[in-house]
Amino acid sequence: MTSLSRRTMLTAAGAAALLPRLAEAAVPISGQQAPGFYRIKLDAYEITILADGSRTFPYPDSFVSNVGRDQALAAAGEAFMPPGKITVPFNPTLINTGSKLVLIDTGNGPDPSGTVGRMFANMAAAGVSPGDVDLVVLSHLHPDHINGLRTKEGTVAFPNATIIAPETEWAFWMSDDNMARASDKLTQNYFANTRKILGGLEERIGRYDWGREVAPGITAIAAPGHTPGHTAFAVASGSSRMLVQSDITNIPEFFLRNPDWHVAYDFEPELAAQTRHKFYDMAASEKMLVTGFHFSFPSAGHVEKDGGTRYRLIPIAWSAAL
Amino acid sequence: MTSLSRRTMLTAAGAAALLPRLAEAAVPISGQQAPGFYRIKLDAYEITILADGSRTFPYPDSFVSNVGRDQALAAAGEAFMPPGKITVPFNPTLINTGSKLVLIDTGNGPDPSGTVGRMFANMAAAGVSPGDVDLVVLSHLHPDHINGLRTKEGTVAFPNATIIAPETEWAFWMSDDNMARASDKLTQNYFANTRKILGGLEERIGRYDWGREVAPGITAIAAPGHTPGHTAFAVASGSSRMLVQSDITNIPEFFLRNPDWHVAYDFEPELAAQTRHKFYDMAASEKMLVTGFHFSFPSAGHVEKDGGTRYRLIPIAWSAAL
Repeated sequence: MTSLSRRTMLTAAGAAALLPRLAEAAVPISGQQAPGFYRIKLDAYEITILADGSRTFPYPDSFVSNVGRDQALAAAGEAFMPPGKITVPFNPTLINTGSKLVLIDTGNGPDPSGTVGRMFANMAAAGVSPGDVDLVVLSHLHPDHINGLRTKEGTVAFPNATIIAPETEWAFWMSDDNMARASDKLTQNYFANTRKILGGLEERIGRYDWGREVAPGITAIAAPGHTPGHTAFAVASGSSRMLVQSDITNIPEFFLRNPDWHVAYDFEPELAAQTRHKFYDMAASEKMLVTGFHFSFPSAGHVEKDGGTRYRLIPIAWSAAL
Repeated sequence: MTSLSRRTMLTAAGAAALLPRLAEAAVPISGQQAPGFYRIKLDAYEITILADGSRTFPYPDSFVSNVGRDQALAAAGEAFMPPGKITVPFNPTLINTGSKLVLIDTGNGPDPSGTVGRMFANMAAAGVSPGDVDLVVLSHLHPDHINGLRTKEGTVAFPNATIIAPETEWAFWMSDDNMARASDKLTQNYFANTRKILGGLEERIGRYDWGREVAPGITAIAAPGHTPGHTAFAVASGSSRMLVQSDITNIPEFFLRNPDWHVAYDFEPELAAQTRHKFYDMAASEKMLVTGFHFSFPSAGHVEKDGGTRYRLIPIAWSAAL
C-alpha cells in the first residue's frame, strides 16, 4: 500500500509522460470558462453579479502607497496570487427589483486584452440585453466603473436606460478647475478619461444625492475617500438586506486584511480608511451580506473581525438553486 | 449629507415598500441560477468542477459525533450558514487529459428534491455528454459518490466508460460477511445502497490499487479512515499539480477549521483525523491546489495553517478566462 507521502503526491504521477497515448479523448479540451454570472435571491429582488474579468499584473511599486513592496507581496502570497503579481477582479451588480432593472457600475468597457470587458458577454449569458437595463447607477467615476457606458463604436451602451451619477462626484470630476489643479499623472488620467467617456453625455446623465433612494429599495450611502463622491448602496427587499460596497475596499485580500493600507487609487486615503473601518465594523456586527466590485467572483460574502483592526471576507456559499 | 449609519443601512431603504410600482421591468425575474461548472487549466489538462448541488438541513444531533450541538452550530454560524442548519455541497471532478476524459465520483444521481442530482445538467452546460466519459473513478462507495452511476431508469449512466473502484473499498463493502456484522443503521444503509447501485455491475466495474496511476497523470493515494478504502488523487500535468482530496475532510468550515472533529459518516474517525492532518500538513507546506468534493463550489483552493492544529481553506480566485 502506498500511503500519503510528499513523493507520491509530487512525483509518482510524473511517470504519466512516459505512457503512450492510446487514443485521443472523445471531447477536445474546451479552453472555455463557464459564464461569469451568479444570482442571489434577496426576498423579491434578484441580484445578478456580472463578472467583467480581472487583471493580473506584476506588482508595481505604488499599488499600496503606504506599505513596501515586500510586505504587499507577502499579502499577495497569502492569497495564493501568482508569484510577484497581483490580481484585481471587476464585478458590476445587476438588480432586478421586479419593476426596474438596475445596473450598478459598468465595468471596463471594450478592451482588446480580453481579460476584462467581459460584462456584456456575461450579461448575455444571463439572458439580459443592454437594452433591457432601465437604470444605470454609477458609484463613482473611475474608468473601470464608467467605461462600459460606451460601446466600441462610442455609442451609449444602454440605449433605454436612465443614467445617474453622484452629485458630489460629478461636480468634482467635471470641474475644469479641478482638472487644471491635478498634479499627479494618475489623477490627470482619471480626469482625461471622464472627458473621453462622459463628454457629450452631460445632459444624458442625471445626478443623485446621498441618503436617497436611487430606485425602489436601493439607497445611496455616502462613502467618500476613495473618490470625493464615492457611493455605496443599501439594497432592501422585504426583510432582506444587502450592501453594495463599491470600492470601499479594493481587493479584500489586501485592504480588508489590512484596512489601514492605502490603495494608490484612493483620492483621500485617510478618509477612505476611516470609511472602510466604519463600514466594516457595522457590516461585521450586523452580519450583513456585502458585494464588492473588486471581490473575487461571485463577489459576495460576509465579513468577520480578525483581532482589533483587521477583517476577513467569508465568501458566500455558492447556491446551485434560487 | 447622509453618511454611513446603522439606521441608513438597515431602515432607510424600507420606504421602498411605500413607493408605487410605475412599470413592470422589461426583464422578468429569472429564478435561474448560473450553470455550476468551473474550469481550471492544469498545464495541458483541463479540469472541470461539476456542481451536483447541495443539501441544507436542520443540524442533526449526530453530524459531528464528538462535539456537542451548540459547538457545531457555532461553527456553522461562523460560516454564515442559515441559523440552526448546515449546508453540505457535492462536487465531482472531471479531468480531460487530452487522451482520456476521466470523471472522479458521480454525485447523488437522480433526486426528486432538485437540490442535488444536478451534475448531469451541469455537465451538459459544460458541453459534455455522459457518453463522452472514458473512465469513471470512484473514490469510495458512499451514496453521494456512486449513485450517479445509474440513470433514473436504472441503466448505467456512462455507457462508454470503464468504471473502477478501489480494491480495498470494494472488498469491504461487497462482503456479505461485513454487511451482516454492520450494527448501526447508517452503516447498514450504506451496505444496502451498494447492493442497490452496484448489484449487477460486479463484472462491469474494475478495481484499482493505491499508489498506481488510474489514468495518465492521475495517481491513486491511500486516504483511509472515512471508509476503509477511501482514496484521494494526485493529478499531474507538466510541472503543475493538483490534489483531489475526495472526502479527507467533509465540509471545510467544520473539519478543516477543526480537523479533530469527527463527521458521523467516518467509518474509522480516529484514522480519518490522522489522514486529514497528514494530508493537510503536506498540502499547506507545499502550497498545493486542492479540490474537495464537499468544498463550496467551485470547490478548489489552497490551505493555510491556523495555529498548531487548525487549517483554513483559501478559495481559488475565480478566473474569467483560461
